[in-house]
Amino acid sequence: MDTLVQTPRTTLKRRPGRGSFDRALINSILDEALVCHIGFTVDDQPYVVPTTYARVDDRLYIHGSIASRMLRNLAAGVPMCFTVTLLDGLVLARSAFHHSMNYRSVMVFGVAREVADLAERLRAFEAVVNHVMPNRFAATRAPDEQEIKATSVIALDIDEASAKVRNGPVSDAEEDYALPFWAGVVPMKLVPQAPIPDERLLPGVPVPPELTSYRRAR
Amino acid sequence: MDTLVQTPRTTLKRRPGRGSFDRALINSILDEALVCHIGFTVDDQPYVVPTTYARVDDRLYIHGSIASRMLRNLAAGVPMCFTVTLLDGLVLARSAFHHSMNYRSVMVFGVAREVADLAERLRAFEAVVNHVMPNRFAATRAPDEQEIKATSVIALDIDEASAKVRNGPVSDAEEDYALPFWAGVVPMKLVPQAPIPDERLLPGVPVPPELTSYRRAR
Repeated sequence: MDTLVQTPRTTLKRRPGRGSFDRALINSILDEALVCHIGFTVDDQPYVVPTTYARVDDRLYIHGSIASRMLRNLAAGVPMCFTVTLLDGLVLARSAFHHSMNYRSVMVFGVAREVADLAERLRAFEAVVNHVMPNRFAATRAPDEQEIKATSVIALDIDEASAKVRNGPVSDAEEDYALPFWAGVVPMKLVPQAPIPDERLLPGVPVPPELTSYRRAR
Repeated sequence: MDTLVQTPRTTLKRRPGRGSFDRALINSILDEALVCHIGFTVDDQPYVVPTTYARVDDRLYIHGSIASRMLRNLAAGVPMCFTVTLLDGLVLARSAFHHSMNYRSVMVFGVAREVADLAERLRAFEAVVNHVMPNRFAATRAPDEQEIKATSVIALDIDEASAKVRNGPVSDAEEDYALPFWAGVVPMKLVPQAPIPDERLLPGVPVPPELTSYRRAR
């Protein structure tokens, strides 16, 4: 089992039993989520910005417009926190106090690096598109020179990271099990709905097989 | 229309056309989401922590253990950023470059206040449970003195906030509409699955009507 080194920043202060430094678990959460929340600080003000991303091996890529304030700050080397959260269920206990959520989350700490190398930039573009749907990049028009220039790419190595997971049933106080309240778990799932083909789709263009079978959980 | 005052922090640097300061829109997003991501900075390191919350009028409540590092920092008055994001769809364009997501997000900036007043604390507990499912709090054992003491509550007024929304179809470059690639939108929905009753549920306890009809989108 490949396990990351625990650091002061990744040590869970609360409920350490829910924490994990197992790289396979961390990767599975990073690969299932579609949106991350990136934290960075400018003039003492923290910002938390949702965006797309991709994992390639032990590295995360984030891209966006060269005009993006977030990417300019991250490229300049401000410390960042990259968090993804998958909501798996509502935990409805007999007591208000023991209500909870089932979830899987990952936090990655570090300083990003601006990706200048063209080949690595292209790999990042491909990875971000294919993170959304397998094989999608090959089924699109590739970025042209102007689009490549207009896009900033940063990389964050997954060196300092932890996962936190709650799963399983309600955990009520022993005396509360005698109470006549409904209790249980409501699993929650991010479910793709029927695709809406673009109005200007050319006639005869087939639906990609990856779309027909599309689901998020691996 | 009740509109929030735009500030430097809530001014969108990118795609201002997607931004809104309409309180009704902001509230609808805050009420639909289940998990927020809270950003705060300690010793120049930003942290982004997922947690539950509730909105009551123009105020957000967050609670947790009195041992929570996040809540201790927020109660001490460090600047925070409260972000929620609802993923509504995958936007699969003909070009890799124009791939996008449909989403609704809200960012709230400010400094939290620790809630000391018992009546307000109890209202916050109730709101956080009922945010997950309507009328749930009344169908549970209320917090006892020890649980109330063990829980820290903070409030963040929704004064400085903005929403950002992308919806609608693919937006490809005009010349790309002639390309024979599939394009369209895959709507995504957080869907409650069949509830799993707790193994120790008392016989004859009815399933709450709010659970039978449970859905997240309003």
